[in-house]
Amino acid sequence: MRWLRYHGANGIRYGIVEGETVAEIDTTPFETWQRTGTTVQLDAVKTLVPVIPGTFYAIGLNYAAHATQFAALQGLKIPTRPQPGYRANSALVAHGEDIVIPAASGGIQYEGELVVVIGKTARHVAESDALSIVLGYTIGNDVSERAWQKIDNGLWRAKNCDTFKPMGPWIETDVDLPSLMTRVRINGEQRLEFRTNEMIFSIEQHIAEITKYITLHPGDVIWMGTEGSNADLKAGDVVEIELDQIGTLRNPVLAERP
Amino acid sequence: MRWLRYHGANGIRYGIVEGETVAEIDTTPFETWQRTGTTVQLDAVKTLVPVIPGTFYAIGLNYAAHATQFAALQGLKIPTRPQPGYRANSALVAHGEDIVIPAASGGIQYEGELVVVIGKTARHVAESDALSIVLGYTIGNDVSERAWQKIDNGLWRAKNCDTFKPMGPWIETDVDLPSLMTRVRINGEQRLEFRTNEMIFSIEQHIAEITKYITLHPGDVIWMGTEGSNADLKAGDVVEIELDQIGTLRNPVLAERP
Repeated sequence: MRWLRYHGANGIRYGIVEGETVAEIDTTPFETWQRTGTTVQLDAVKTLVPVIPGTFYAIGLNYAAHATQFAALQGLKIPTRPQPGYRANSALVAHGEDIVIPAASGGIQYEGELVVVIGKTARHVAESDALSIVLGYTIGNDVSERAWQKIDNGLWRAKNCDTFKPMGPWIETDVDLPSLMTRVRINGEQRLEFRTNEMIFSIEQHIAEITKYITLHPGDVIWMGTEGSNADLKAGDVVEIELDQIGTLRNPVLAERP
Repeated sequence: MRWLRYHGANGIRYGIVEGETVAEIDTTPFETWQRTGTTVQLDAVKTLVPVIPGTFYAIGLNYAAHATQFAALQGLKIPTRPQPGYRANSALVAHGEDIVIPAASGGIQYEGELVVVIGKTARHVAESDALSIVLGYTIGNDVSERAWQKIDNGLWRAKNCDTFKPMGPWIETDVDLPSLMTRVRINGEQRLEFRTNEMIFSIEQHIAEITKYITLHPGDVIWMGTEGSNADLKAGDVVEIELDQIGTLRNPVLAERP
């Protein structure tokens, strides 16, 4: 099932994507819901960020080649246990919205990521039960400014400037994680491909570790990290992150006018 | 003016604290509001976290003695420019609610902080205009687990466990920052006192720097850091952070049952 959050004639709504139409529901996928009977055309509504997270987790250094390269950039060790970080809601933009290169930046890069959307309130969850608290999956582009990532304490500018966190287009509830592939294209040309589930620490391990200390809530998201090196983006580019069973997150790139 | 967010007979509401009564309003302080004419007794309602922030900023290492001590703990340099970090909404608790020492922890400490509550949407704000986007001020206790602060990449466990972010009791709009004092008491005994505004980088400098890159929104909060060393908290303690023109944030301390 695909959950779209959108702005249509009735305001901001959730609906179920069924081919080219969207079946509106009365509440949200995070609570009891019913179909209202209203349907809209998918291409006639504005796609919104699929959920505004209560808490926005992001896992850094979670794929082998990427971890080796970027741990060195920030002077960090490669994690030997799950260690989540955080991103800022202020940076979220939807599928189709612009990524803006800040005037002060020397250049930005994409990072294509699987996003886990939490569906239940949970603390002290065993690895074997971890996927039972997941509502579904969406796609994130963890846009990064490497010069700031290297020189700053923390990632506030490097990963949280306005527009640096595209997420969407929707939440897919039915995903076979072992066979899931991530592909990144710039202007239609494939730049990166990797098996999404080949993480250093799994979704289950991260949920178990986080919930030893912290309650996860419906609508929280966990961005699972990326693999590989990433090419620079320039104004005029269109960047697409495809996770084959979920969909494609597409965003044009602009430069901020100084 | 003091803005209380509370749970009363009409559900979750904002009101204006006037002595021992609270005058209910129809919306929130972040939009156009009117008094409803209903008043409630302050001691008859449950005090809530004064705002659930869209983005939750926290400034580390922003007072001289604290910065020297804790930069060394984390292997960081003392910042030579404003460098905000983030905290997690999942850790917020209200005035009067329990701080829980995690079963896995060796000990936790308080950090008494001034909290800036943003009132307007703003980007590219000059230092001279920065305070014009502030709605008011509240109090935060940036509870910290020092062993995890030392050994982890980032502060996810050290500062964001459940209950580690008491904030409140209300938002005070009229504060004379140069004369504001912060005092911390444990079980009624004063442990720490410092001039709140003697920061390494000011509120104005932080707002100007953040908004070079990021839009601030109504309801965002910026915790401004703390001074000094902090004593360990133990189960049964009551910790109070007093900012003399704002009020007192009081929280009991419990131990998680293993």
